[in-house]
Amino acid sequence: MRTALAIGDAGGVGPELAAKLLAHPEMQGRDFVVIGDARLLEMGKTHAGVAFDLPVVAASEVARGLPAGRVMVDLANCGPEAITKGSSNPAAGAASLQNFAAALRLAQAGIADAAMFTPFNKHSMRLARPDYVDEIGFIDRVLGATRSGREFNVLEEVWNARVTSHIPLRKVADTLSVERILASIKLTHEVMEGAGKPNPRIGVAALNPHAGDGRNFGEEDDDIIEPAVRAAAAEGLAVKGPIPSDTVFVRAIRGEFDAVLTMYHDQGQIAMKLMGFDRGVTLIAGYGFPICTPAHGTAYDIAGQGKADLGATLAAARLAESLAKLNPPRGASVALGADWATGAVETETALAD
Amino acid sequence: MRTALAIGDAGGVGPELAAKLLAHPEMQGRDFVVIGDARLLEMGKTHAGVAFDLPVVAASEVARGLPAGRVMVDLANCGPEAITKGSSNPAAGAASLQNFAAALRLAQAGIADAAMFTPFNKHSMRLARPDYVDEIGFIDRVLGATRSGREFNVLEEVWNARVTSHIPLRKVADTLSVERILASIKLTHEVMEGAGKPNPRIGVAALNPHAGDGRNFGEEDDDIIEPAVRAAAAEGLAVKGPIPSDTVFVRAIRGEFDAVLTMYHDQGQIAMKLMGFDRGVTLIAGYGFPICTPAHGTAYDIAGQGKADLGATLAAARLAESLAKLNPPRGASVALGADWATGAVETETALAD
Repeated sequence: MRTALAIGDAGGVGPELAAKLLAHPEMQGRDFVVIGDARLLEMGKTHAGVAFDLPVVAASEVARGLPAGRVMVDLANCGPEAITKGSSNPAAGAASLQNFAAALRLAQAGIADAAMFTPFNKHSMRLARPDYVDEIGFIDRVLGATRSGREFNVLEEVWNARVTSHIPLRKVADTLSVERILASIKLTHEVMEGAGKPNPRIGVAALNPHAGDGRNFGEEDDDIIEPAVRAAAAEGLAVKGPIPSDTVFVRAIRGEFDAVLTMYHDQGQIAMKLMGFDRGVTLIAGYGFPICTPAHGTAYDIAGQGKADLGATLAAARLAESLAKLNPPRGASVALGADWATGAVETETALAD
Repeated sequence: MRTALAIGDAGGVGPELAAKLLAHPEMQGRDFVVIGDARLLEMGKTHAGVAFDLPVVAASEVARGLPAGRVMVDLANCGPEAITKGSSNPAAGAASLQNFAAALRLAQAGIADAAMFTPFNKHSMRLARPDYVDEIGFIDRVLGATRSGREFNVLEEVWNARVTSHIPLRKVADTLSVERILASIKLTHEVMEGAGKPNPRIGVAALNPHAGDGRNFGEEDDDIIEPAVRAAAAEGLAVKGPIPSDTVFVRAIRGEFDAVLTMYHDQGQIAMKLMGFDRGVTLIAGYGFPICTPAHGTAYDIAGQGKADLGATLAAARLAESLAKLNPPRGASVALGADWATGAVETETALAD
């Protein structure tokens, strides 16, 4: 089991969290291939107050096979002098994207079993690449995926998946369909079973206030969500809904559901952040290997001070490992290209969702 | 200071909560005019295990002036034999509506300074009156209001008001306007000042994910919400926004805001219910007198067992009193009609929002 770990935004807590993770006692038996600029990791070690040695492997040698244990692929793409701690920066954004793409390609090639990254900063990434929209769209392009993956927000107590994500609220209702919701329920079920949670109990959030209140406040709950839930239940899934979105999370944390499927971004995020999701993990699933990251951001206000809490990053590493172990072994679906570590990613042309 | 207290749904915890409230030591110095069926209140006293005497006044005598202290106006509109504890019922719904309308008319006539009610059940009310939509629409019709009031969800820590409420999610974006949001900010400010919270700090929630993420996920945050917030700030109000809705409540409970203005129903309710809003109070403001009720529902599962927690009802009574005391004394805006206690309310023709 090897995890590809991409170093996140250099202006934020990404380098120090990567260093803290690698130094953590629980991670000592684990193989990582760390991707980024070795000088940034050194900086992170200094800020975190930790010490360890990490052999460096050239990018060109990786395709021939990695040694057991931990290694670093030094992309030498972002020296500490190029960035300012505590603010966004195009060099940091460009390096984040390159590190991320390389980690994804390693996992796609079967050289790593999971990918993870410490926090990125979207503003830095856009300074480097104005067409960057979000992780899902970027991953699709790096991997040449024909079907987009899905983001899960994972707290120990409850998981959250959503049917739509980064789209305007006014487009949500028209983006929903029975097929789409049914597919989301099934994907949630599959990913959670793959994560060792057999027959997960899924609560499906309603779209409209009071679940439409018997069609008084909208039709979609009766016409779209209810049939999708019924179809999923008919296939034996432990699913309930539509449940008014202001009670579904209360019921979940009281133990009734293992996961909540929400119809739009904020419907889940409002609840998850209040429930402490900054301690949680973002999981991107659907690409054949897990992609995990701490749910919190770059925390520019405390970057470089060694204060950043490792909890969510540690949880991300644990989840990546357990998911990779539970999934059946995969062969390399795509051979590693010669430019795997630095190759450009095609321009995005549309929103991922 | 006198509060008109309408007894809520007879199948639920409404009668026992009314009885518990009237028996509570803190309420002993307070004048109430209790409206409902005296037999229901007796049932509530039995279930709650409390005892007190309450003089009964005939509806026809009320216009001539009420004696000091507490009284009951016995509408004899719902005997215990007409209902089943723990389920909705048209007789209970009809009585709820009649009690509520009578309490509103007493306050409008200046005979009570505030109105409150123990929990109603919308299903019971619709069994009695299929055109019933929500409280705001009903109050508008009872009072002949030309301008609808607004609902506030009040927790000790944070208040929540919303720009739109009981409408389909797909209609939210088109219902927003700079004027409407500005009016909501001002109303929130006024009501909170009236409640003794000078210069309240108001966080305004964004509509789209990540507040539109620089127009990547929608235009309304930049084109509608931001100008409304700017206009309110220019008038000296302590307002900030648009703030992504998945962080605005986290910031509020950490102490940054006294109130959050949300754009739609669930945006606020998801957060408030997770924050413990079932312990909170629903305040309907904008009619010249406060209308308060506990935020929780009829709790059919524990109705009649005397277990219902009085906390939210007590908080509702306290809020009604403090708001009525802070507001300047009003003359009777409308004289009490002969049929104030039993008069019909015109049919609703449109949603309130």
